[in-house]
Amino acid sequence: MSRIFNFSAGPAMLPEEVLQQAASEMMDKDGSGMSVMEMSHRSKFYQKIIDEAEADLRKLLNIPENYKVLFLQGGATLAFAMIPMNFMVNGKIDVINTGVWTKKAIKDAKLYGEVRVVADGEPNGFKTIPDLDSIKFNKDADYVYMCDNNTIYGTKYPKYPNVGDLALINDMSSCFLSEPIDVSKFAMIYAGAQKNVGPAGVTICIIREDLLARTPRNPLPAYLDYRIHAENGSMYNTPPTYGIYICGLVFKWLLAHGGLEERKRVNEEKAKILYDYLDHSKIFKPYADKANRSLMNVTFRTLSEEMDAEFLEGAKKYRFTNLKGHRSVGGLRASIYNAMPIEGVKALVAYMKEFEEAHL
Amino acid sequence: MSRIFNFSAGPAMLPEEVLQQAASEMMDKDGSGMSVMEMSHRSKFYQKIIDEAEADLRKLLNIPENYKVLFLQGGATLAFAMIPMNFMVNGKIDVINTGVWTKKAIKDAKLYGEVRVVADGEPNGFKTIPDLDSIKFNKDADYVYMCDNNTIYGTKYPKYPNVGDLALINDMSSCFLSEPIDVSKFAMIYAGAQKNVGPAGVTICIIREDLLARTPRNPLPAYLDYRIHAENGSMYNTPPTYGIYICGLVFKWLLAHGGLEERKRVNEEKAKILYDYLDHSKIFKPYADKANRSLMNVTFRTLSEEMDAEFLEGAKKYRFTNLKGHRSVGGLRASIYNAMPIEGVKALVAYMKEFEEAHL
Repeated sequence: MSRIFNFSAGPAMLPEEVLQQAASEMMDKDGSGMSVMEMSHRSKFYQKIIDEAEADLRKLLNIPENYKVLFLQGGATLAFAMIPMNFMVNGKIDVINTGVWTKKAIKDAKLYGEVRVVADGEPNGFKTIPDLDSIKFNKDADYVYMCDNNTIYGTKYPKYPNVGDLALINDMSSCFLSEPIDVSKFAMIYAGAQKNVGPAGVTICIIREDLLARTPRNPLPAYLDYRIHAENGSMYNTPPTYGIYICGLVFKWLLAHGGLEERKRVNEEKAKILYDYLDHSKIFKPYADKANRSLMNVTFRTLSEEMDAEFLEGAKKYRFTNLKGHRSVGGLRASIYNAMPIEGVKALVAYMKEFEEAHL
Repeated sequence: MSRIFNFSAGPAMLPEEVLQQAASEMMDKDGSGMSVMEMSHRSKFYQKIIDEAEADLRKLLNIPENYKVLFLQGGATLAFAMIPMNFMVNGKIDVINTGVWTKKAIKDAKLYGEVRVVADGEPNGFKTIPDLDSIKFNKDADYVYMCDNNTIYGTKYPKYPNVGDLALINDMSSCFLSEPIDVSKFAMIYAGAQKNVGPAGVTICIIREDLLARTPRNPLPAYLDYRIHAENGSMYNTPPTYGIYICGLVFKWLLAHGGLEERKRVNEEKAKILYDYLDHSKIFKPYADKANRSLMNVTFRTLSEEMDAEFLEGAKKYRFTNLKGHRSVGGLRASIYNAMPIEGVKALVAYMKEFEEAHL
């Protein structure tokens, strides 16, 4: 069987070269006589793998030296709890609410202190990122929390809020490594790996040292303390070794293909093909506000739910999968992360045109 | 290069057939056109994988219907925190201390209530499991906590304590699926996958429903609440999809090779070869007490630290790896989990004999 175009919002497509290398090394990684899955995390072989992964990630994002890079578990969902547990020291934070993911973060953070929603995209169905220039941040906020790319609605911050001296924490799960960013603007960036980076089960955290130097209000159990992971190079306990290895292969793939500048160029080109078509279609309508569009998750719908269903049914003959919108908003969604080739986007638009012509 | 005998305490060897299947399916799982790593966890394809994994595990362990099976993240280290957070309702627990892993669990549990060490193996260097018949459990204990197999010292419970009506929680990380057990004796069993079951990054929890029906003393964030995972079939958030798939392949491998009765027979045979030799050797000395020996982790040492080092150096010519004891106790250790073939044990003993003859 041939490989298909998979428009899943995550877990999502991975580069074919990465999967091929993983397959070829499954029985024996570099003459070690074992799979990476079988390696002791305390072995020199594995230490080299995680060290290279970190070094390559630092190169890709140009991460300053005063940031720690951690490879953890539990996804964004566990981070929603760990961040307030670790970094709420006065007990008050500011959050920009842009959808389901920030709402979940808010719910967990409220267990540990006061959460002030300083801007809210909910009144207009999260189709836009709230106006950033008009936000008044509270000076006593332990941190400002945001989610950069909102998979469900297909929105993305067009720029970053000016938080002054406040610590800005960014959930970048679904846009991580899709373009260059200035890490120094953030006190912490984190991302679940299962969109642009690797398999589900790895959470990458990039945390500035002054944030780690804070003393939590309550003593934390070992796994939930970012400091313990930082002091032990993500090896306090057994890390998700195989997942980190795949992430490392993806980092090498990105470096070998022009790094994040080139990725941004390709991602913009891919998204433009879809958005240009959507902006002129008579039956497909984009969902997210034009000024806040995601390059990763393109949300749209047809003229009716019935037509959406017909579109999904017709997509099967081209073996396009996972084009259904998130259950909370309905409609259609094409997630076109780093590993989605431009041919996949072109093929999708060709099908959309064919579908449109048949329905005019 | 050829595959080697890897005596790592975990992550550890996996069955060759499992790795071969994983490699062969890496580009396309069952005609889906994608790797399991790329599958949406909300897809029918993936649902089938996790459903089969659970069904096969239930078959292997004969898990009663009033137990939930969860596939989570964070390893035993996160469970050390989650268990008291979820199940300490009156705030007092009893723990049998058998080494580093129960000590870590005790440390985290103390953040949430009173921990009474009702039996302690520390005075004799954790070489024995404390006498179980003489333990007086406290009737007000929310649960009794134990660790079944202690990788570092090579000890294993020879039988289970009689806790009456109390809830017994068992960390089986390093002996899970090595032999049949009566699940109904426990309120909860859990295990990190990276010993007998799969790659690091999957924690399997088997929890009785009455335990899940308890109300935590404090509201819990979503990821740390076992109930939320149980209500959502381990899919509240994105689970470690690829790791669960590999666990599922291992379950099928176990079922195809006689299940846990046969595994017990083979594991006993493998361990006997090593222990019989150790019991008669003039230079190799077993570490764990004879009555409490682990079938999974065989701990021993030579006459001196220098000789231990020489033994490890000499092991390289046979490509035996990870025979060094845990840094907290030193010496030597051969971990011989399910996937270690009997040939590996025989080859190791052949080398030990050769080494002994050269040093008599």
